[in-house]
Amino acid sequence: MMEFPLLLRTFLWRAARFFPKKEIVSVYGNEVFRYTYGDYYKRVCQLAHALKSLGIKKGDHVASFSLNNHRHLELYYGVPCSGAVLHTVNPRLPLNHLAYIINHAEDQVVFIDEDLLFMFEPVKDLLKTVKHFVIMSQSGKIPQTSLSPVHSYDELIAPFPEEYDFPVDLDEWSPAFICYTSATTGDPKGVVYTHRGLVLHTYAAGVTLGIKEGDCVLHIVPMFHANAWGGPLGGVAFGCKQILPGRDILNMEGICKVIAKEKVTFTAGVPTIWMMLYDYLEKGGWHDFSTLKAIYSGGAACPRYLMEGFNEKYGFPIVQAYGMTETAPLALAALPKSYMADWPMDKLYDIRSSAGLIAPGLEIKIVNDQGKEAKWDGKEWGEIMLRGPWIAKEYYKDPERSKPYFEGGWLHTGDVGTIDEEGYVRLVDRTKDLVKSAGEWISSVDLENAIMSHPKVMEAAVIGVPHPKWQERPLACVVPAMGQTVTEEELKEYLKDKVKAAWWIPDRFIFLKEIPKTSVGKFSKKDLRVLYAEGKLETKA
Amino acid sequence: MMEFPLLLRTFLWRAARFFPKKEIVSVYGNEVFRYTYGDYYKRVCQLAHALKSLGIKKGDHVASFSLNNHRHLELYYGVPCSGAVLHTVNPRLPLNHLAYIINHAEDQVVFIDEDLLFMFEPVKDLLKTVKHFVIMSQSGKIPQTSLSPVHSYDELIAPFPEEYDFPVDLDEWSPAFICYTSATTGDPKGVVYTHRGLVLHTYAAGVTLGIKEGDCVLHIVPMFHANAWGGPLGGVAFGCKQILPGRDILNMEGICKVIAKEKVTFTAGVPTIWMMLYDYLEKGGWHDFSTLKAIYSGGAACPRYLMEGFNEKYGFPIVQAYGMTETAPLALAALPKSYMADWPMDKLYDIRSSAGLIAPGLEIKIVNDQGKEAKWDGKEWGEIMLRGPWIAKEYYKDPERSKPYFEGGWLHTGDVGTIDEEGYVRLVDRTKDLVKSAGEWISSVDLENAIMSHPKVMEAAVIGVPHPKWQERPLACVVPAMGQTVTEEELKEYLKDKVKAAWWIPDRFIFLKEIPKTSVGKFSKKDLRVLYAEGKLETKA
Repeated sequence: MMEFPLLLRTFLWRAARFFPKKEIVSVYGNEVFRYTYGDYYKRVCQLAHALKSLGIKKGDHVASFSLNNHRHLELYYGVPCSGAVLHTVNPRLPLNHLAYIINHAEDQVVFIDEDLLFMFEPVKDLLKTVKHFVIMSQSGKIPQTSLSPVHSYDELIAPFPEEYDFPVDLDEWSPAFICYTSATTGDPKGVVYTHRGLVLHTYAAGVTLGIKEGDCVLHIVPMFHANAWGGPLGGVAFGCKQILPGRDILNMEGICKVIAKEKVTFTAGVPTIWMMLYDYLEKGGWHDFSTLKAIYSGGAACPRYLMEGFNEKYGFPIVQAYGMTETAPLALAALPKSYMADWPMDKLYDIRSSAGLIAPGLEIKIVNDQGKEAKWDGKEWGEIMLRGPWIAKEYYKDPERSKPYFEGGWLHTGDVGTIDEEGYVRLVDRTKDLVKSAGEWISSVDLENAIMSHPKVMEAAVIGVPHPKWQERPLACVVPAMGQTVTEEELKEYLKDKVKAAWWIPDRFIFLKEIPKTSVGKFSKKDLRVLYAEGKLETKA
Repeated sequence: MMEFPLLLRTFLWRAARFFPKKEIVSVYGNEVFRYTYGDYYKRVCQLAHALKSLGIKKGDHVASFSLNNHRHLELYYGVPCSGAVLHTVNPRLPLNHLAYIINHAEDQVVFIDEDLLFMFEPVKDLLKTVKHFVIMSQSGKIPQTSLSPVHSYDELIAPFPEEYDFPVDLDEWSPAFICYTSATTGDPKGVVYTHRGLVLHTYAAGVTLGIKEGDCVLHIVPMFHANAWGGPLGGVAFGCKQILPGRDILNMEGICKVIAKEKVTFTAGVPTIWMMLYDYLEKGGWHDFSTLKAIYSGGAACPRYLMEGFNEKYGFPIVQAYGMTETAPLALAALPKSYMADWPMDKLYDIRSSAGLIAPGLEIKIVNDQGKEAKWDGKEWGEIMLRGPWIAKEYYKDPERSKPYFEGGWLHTGDVGTIDEEGYVRLVDRTKDLVKSAGEWISSVDLENAIMSHPKVMEAAVIGVPHPKWQERPLACVVPAMGQTVTEEELKEYLKDKVKAAWWIPDRFIFLKEIPKTSVGKFSKKDLRVLYAEGKLETKA
């Protein structure tokens, strides 16, 4: 068959030529900007010319410091299709990490959202390779800034032709995106996504999640986070209507309005968002979900009460997906099989609350602590290992740290889990978060889920803390539900029939106003451990 | 990302490990054979061992002479996953072509359906490379045969282990299948499908046609015909229930029974089948289509009355797809876009009766007779050219004949068509079937469709015949509908407001009992031309 490279270019061309009337909607506070794939393509072409004018060549790195908006979507295709590499920077990273990743990636140009400028400016003097700054603003004007040389995105691209000859002779193994993991220890690690990997990821996400031209996809996952889980690239590839909600993703009233108004069929995000949405709904918040087919949840385990609540009260399923920056990210999706349709609801929620089934194209195994493949019986624990054409093979410019994670041609995910007879994966814990009590493993995740199933609890994180006799014992950090109080005794009593064994029940419960979060919104157990070690955990309550 | 090859192996493994309970149903006359992907996988493994025992090595060619049944499906994955190449032979080919393609492909082993043995035996003495014959039979016994050495499929594989280590280090560019086009002139031409091409074709068919695990796919397209259009490979990849109807694909009562009993959701085939089905239904034939979502039609243009009839009377759409052996075969599919939902039915049928929109991953252009790209205005004609990762790059061992078809890195399809502003392709004609009258082109296909829209006409084929004054003039060969008579005058009158210009109307109409067909069921205009040249066309009436 033809040696035709797998390039994002083909998807861009398809949207432009076959779906020029389909809409892209970008929300800027109260302003709603709308245009079509026809207009989008013209600006992507202008952007490609502009990149050239800034001296960007094939393989050069270009950074975005941006949320979910239409200019960021232009960068998503414009940068890689022209042969350069888009580095999506997480603006919530601490300053030292920001400087580290931009320098480590050797970014030449940084594209910055106007309203994130204040977060970017402090890093400026630490940057070693950046030659141009481009401000993306709706006003088209450059705000007061110390950055230099600085351009306005719209002005920069305006003079250029609305056609561009995107190279078809690019190698499919060429890098298209680079994204750094939010490091819990040490410097962030860079993951390079090739054109080939992203094209295949797009197909696999399409067949797994069933996204079609007729869908309207709302991108709640930040676009700096692992290609926003593939939604924006897939949206273009399949000609979907796309909604970019800007910075307002934490405004549940706004989210509900946009779902109703734009007739959203799919959206995706971390459980934290769905907890907030559920809370908003339970307080009687206005909504109209008549077009919504499913919500995809990932990044952390979605509590079962949320799955049940959305499904039974609001009429759509939460589909849990599993992946990580290193997997582009879709690896598993928790969709029941067709013959499970008449299973009892309880068993169905067991399926829906699993990490899911492998996407077609990837391979999985679980390996126990003796280095042997664990049985698929739903009981034996093992580290989850993945391989396939959209799995990273190494960390960028970091062969030393890459070694243990990619040994033997498999990605060692650092997640411990089981696989049942039907092939569904269930996460037990992160290898490093397992609590080792008297030589036996306790899953911090199982404990957290059990605690969070208590109606008076909003969030719970469990860490292992040193113990003179048992090596480690679990410590539970609990955030009570809004307006509720809950006691240690209540929770200990509650957990009795919900944990594997009595010795799993944490000895101590600490009540906090909030659990510290990582830059991508996950519980930061690292921060909890530091606070505990410094004796500061109690005082945070 | 990992240099993980795109291999059919990964799909086979997925079906075996994640969908071991899903069913494969194979119909043998009155007997219905059922087993699961779990059992299927075991036999595929045994088959892989058996191939080795017959001396088959990586890259060797193995032929199937078989219809749609479960052993053929075992060959579909067992042969390529073990590193060999499956040559699906069309049993309806004339003897000289059969011998030619088996010798040209250098097939080492031929797998033959018991009930096709009588069609195969005559070719035996013409074969130069075949070392073993394997008979696939439900009885497990070898019938009386002159073939030697001959094996029974079930006996051959029985002694071997039910596990096999399918190579993961196979190059994705390795050939997986070879299929010969049914030549209208000269020897048949071989098209090689690589693992890479078929994996990508599977994804693209999945996202284009929306086939999911919950679907039940009935394979009416013969499995010797361009991978049966991707259905069997995709069925395994996505874990669908699959129905293999055996040789009974022309028995409409049986087809309707199996659709109802097995709860078929999708099926695919040539328009001839759908004409027969429609005829059966219109006569009051029993059916229950409550699970059927769509029928895919390809291989030739599906008459509009069929589309309207099925949709309006029987409640499901016919989705027209376009492709050819050289395109693996899916290239286009005629699915309306979501914003066309409120278009008037008439305009929707215009869309549904087009050749369709390009599948994501391929590229298309139309090139006029001056070698320039024609406009996408629905009017300008041009030859359809395609490129992409599942498009053939040459004919097997035939560089000379390959040249004109693959020049410039595009497949020259030999089809002339238009592309409208929405991107839908409409076929005008085969380049070689256009009628050139007084220096102007007449589309034989447009004429045929216009004639076939007459209620008293079942089939019509138009060929150009030499004319002393106008170079060529169209001649219409017409098969009246069952029990009907229709006259030349009636048809000429009828066509007046249905053709582009009065001079398009054929000067002569010849009424036949049937139009000669090619081995894949298309109108054989070549045969019509020969009959006409020999003065035998009239006497066939």
